[in-house]
Amino acid sequence: MRIDGKPHRSIWPHDDLKAVEIIDQTKLPHRFTTLTLVNVQDAARAIKDMHVRGAPLIGVTAAYGLALAMLADPSDANLNASAEILLATRPTAVNLAWALKVMRGYLSGEKPRDRCAKAFARAAELANEDVALCASIGDHGLTLIQAALARKGGGPVNILTHCNAGWLATVDWGTATAPIYKAHDAGIPVHVFVDETRPRNQGASLTAWELGQHGVSHTVIVDNAGGHVMQHGGIDLVIVGTDRTTASGDVCNKIGTYLKALAAKDNGIPFFVAAPSPSIDFALDDGVAEIPIETRSPEEVTHIAGMTADGRIERVLITPALSPAVNYAFDVTPARLVTGLITERGVIAATKAALASAFPERVIA
Amino acid sequence: MRIDGKPHRSIWPHDDLKAVEIIDQTKLPHRFTTLTLVNVQDAARAIKDMHVRGAPLIGVTAAYGLALAMLADPSDANLNASAEILLATRPTAVNLAWALKVMRGYLSGEKPRDRCAKAFARAAELANEDVALCASIGDHGLTLIQAALARKGGGPVNILTHCNAGWLATVDWGTATAPIYKAHDAGIPVHVFVDETRPRNQGASLTAWELGQHGVSHTVIVDNAGGHVMQHGGIDLVIVGTDRTTASGDVCNKIGTYLKALAAKDNGIPFFVAAPSPSIDFALDDGVAEIPIETRSPEEVTHIAGMTADGRIERVLITPALSPAVNYAFDVTPARLVTGLITERGVIAATKAALASAFPERVIA
Repeated sequence: MRIDGKPHRSIWPHDDLKAVEIIDQTKLPHRFTTLTLVNVQDAARAIKDMHVRGAPLIGVTAAYGLALAMLADPSDANLNASAEILLATRPTAVNLAWALKVMRGYLSGEKPRDRCAKAFARAAELANEDVALCASIGDHGLTLIQAALARKGGGPVNILTHCNAGWLATVDWGTATAPIYKAHDAGIPVHVFVDETRPRNQGASLTAWELGQHGVSHTVIVDNAGGHVMQHGGIDLVIVGTDRTTASGDVCNKIGTYLKALAAKDNGIPFFVAAPSPSIDFALDDGVAEIPIETRSPEEVTHIAGMTADGRIERVLITPALSPAVNYAFDVTPARLVTGLITERGVIAATKAALASAFPERVIA
Repeated sequence: MRIDGKPHRSIWPHDDLKAVEIIDQTKLPHRFTTLTLVNVQDAARAIKDMHVRGAPLIGVTAAYGLALAMLADPSDANLNASAEILLATRPTAVNLAWALKVMRGYLSGEKPRDRCAKAFARAAELANEDVALCASIGDHGLTLIQAALARKGGGPVNILTHCNAGWLATVDWGTATAPIYKAHDAGIPVHVFVDETRPRNQGASLTAWELGQHGVSHTVIVDNAGGHVMQHGGIDLVIVGTDRTTASGDVCNKIGTYLKALAAKDNGIPFFVAAPSPSIDFALDDGVAEIPIETRSPEEVTHIAGMTADGRIERVLITPALSPAVNYAFDVTPARLVTGLITERGVIAATKAALASAFPERVIA
C-alpha cells in the first residue's frame, strides 16, 4: 500500500539480489525507516527483535533470510544451520516453521550453485502468494462493505477494527484491512474506528499509521470506547483479523476482540473476521477450552513507550511500582458472536458445516 | 483508608483550622504528596487542576474552600464571590453546586463573626456524612462478597472493578471499593482485578495504588482483558461505580463499563453498581438516549504521562502525529445488564419499581 504517496510492500529484495529491505516497525508510528538485511543473522535479528511482525511477514522474512544465507554459502551444512537459526527466533510462529520447511525442502533438491538464485525466486513466490491471498480476502470483504453502503443508502461506511491485521503484518493489503483498502481504492467512502489495542497499541501505532499513509479516513479510540460508539449508531460493521480459528469457527485474536464482538451482537452490528485459510486450525474445535492463551511480560502493561514533545522516544511506568499486572495476549470469540469469516474462498458462516464445506481437503476425520 | 500503614482521609483540616490538607492526586501513583490549602484560591485551583477529583471529594473541598474564604473575610460580599469562584472550577459537577448551595445557605443565616468556625464545622459534617454514606454502601456490598465466598466455598473472592470509584474519589471508603475494604478488614480473602481504564488510567494509577497501600491483593489488567478473565472463571463478581444512574436503573459510568457488563452477562457473573443515592437522577429514564456523554480532549488518547527509569515524569505521544482521535468519557450500561445497585439503603434491583420503592421521596411524578 502507499506510504507518503508511494506504493510499498513490507519487505522487498534489492534489484541486485544481494540484500533485502524491510520497514523497521519498531520505529512506527513516530519514524518511517527501513533496514537493510544482508545476511541470515540480520534476518534472524529482524524477526526476533520484532522489526518485522505478523505471521505472514515473518514467514516471508525467514524465506528471504534463507536466500541471504545461500548468497554467503550455498552448502547443505549452511542451509540446515541457517534454517535452524531462523526457526529459533519465534518458536511458536506457525508461518515461520511452514515457510522454512517449504524453502528447505525445495533448496535441498537443488545444486548448491543454483541455490541462491532459486531461493530468491522462491521467496518472491511466497511473498506474491501472500499478496494474492490477502487481495482475495479484500475482494470478498469488499462485497460486505458495498452491502453496508447499500443498506445505509450513503457513505461513509463506518468500520471498527482491532489491533493490526493490516498490510504491515503481511506483505501487502493485510487481512482485516484488505476489504477497507479495496473499498477506498474503489472510491467507496469508508471511515475506520481504530481501537488502540492495549497493551502493545498495535492499533494506534500501526493500523492508524498505515491507514493514514494510504489516505484512509480514520479515528483512533481507546479500547473502552467501541461499545459506546456502537450503541449510538457509529459503526456499520466490524472487521478484525485472527491468529487462529477453530474448525467450529471460534476465533482467537488479540485480547479485547471478544468484548467488541459482544458489543456488536448487543447492537445488531455485523462482526466479520478476515481469516486466511492458513490461520484456520481444523485440529481444534472448542476455542475457549482448547486454545492456549499466551501470557506475555507484565511490563507491556506497566510500561509504555512514546515520543516526547522534543522528539525523544521514552519508556515510562504507568502503574504503581508495587502493583502486579498480568498480560493475556489473546482471547477467544465464540463462533456464536461471529457473523462470518472472510476467507480467500469467500465469506462463509462461522460454523463447522460451512468451514468443512469450504475447505473439504482440510477436514480432519 | 491506610497509606503506608497509617489511616488517612482524602481531605482534612489542620487542627488550628487555619488550613486544609489534601492529597495531590495528580502525582499518584508515582509520588505521595499532600498540598496545604490556605485560601479560597488554593481550593479553587485544587479542584480545577484536578489535584482532587471525584464528585464527593470535589463537593467537600469546595465546602472547606468556603471555610477558608470566611477565615480571610467573613463578609456577605466575600461569601458570594468565593462561592462563585469555586462554582466556576468544574461547572458540570453536581456535588460541587450542591455543597456550595448548602454551605452558602447555611452561612448567610449566620453572623459574619461566627461564619468561619461554623463553616469549618459544617464542612466537617459534610465530610462525615459522605464517609457514613460510603461506609453504609460498604456494609451492604459486604453481604454480596460474603455470598460469593459461600457460593465458592473458599477464597479468594475475585472482584473486577473499573476506573476509580475508590476512597480517593470520596472522603473515605469509596463507593465501589467500600465493600472490598469492608471485606478485607473483616478478614475475607479478596483479590481485585483492576482495569487500567484508558484513557486517563484512573484504575491503574489510583485504584491499584489505594488498594496496594491498604494491603488489598490486586492485579492490574488492560481494559481488553476482562472478558477473557471472566470466560476462564477468574471473576466472581464485578463492582463498579456510577456518575449518574437513571430512575429505571441505566448506569452511566466511565467509558468501557458497558463492555465489562456485557462480558459479565455472557458469563453469568453478577454485575453490581455502587450507587449512592445522590448519583441517582430520578428525572431521567432512558440512559442511552437521555444522558449526554462528555467528549474530552483527544490528547488524553494520543498522549500519556508516566515515570522514566530515572524518576522523571514524561508525557509521550503514542499515536501517529497525523491521526485524529476521539475521547468519549463515559458510556451507559442498560439496566438489563445490571444485577443490582448497592445503595446506602441496601442492594436493590436496577428497575424503576425497585428504585421508586427504595427512594419514594425522590420519585418525580
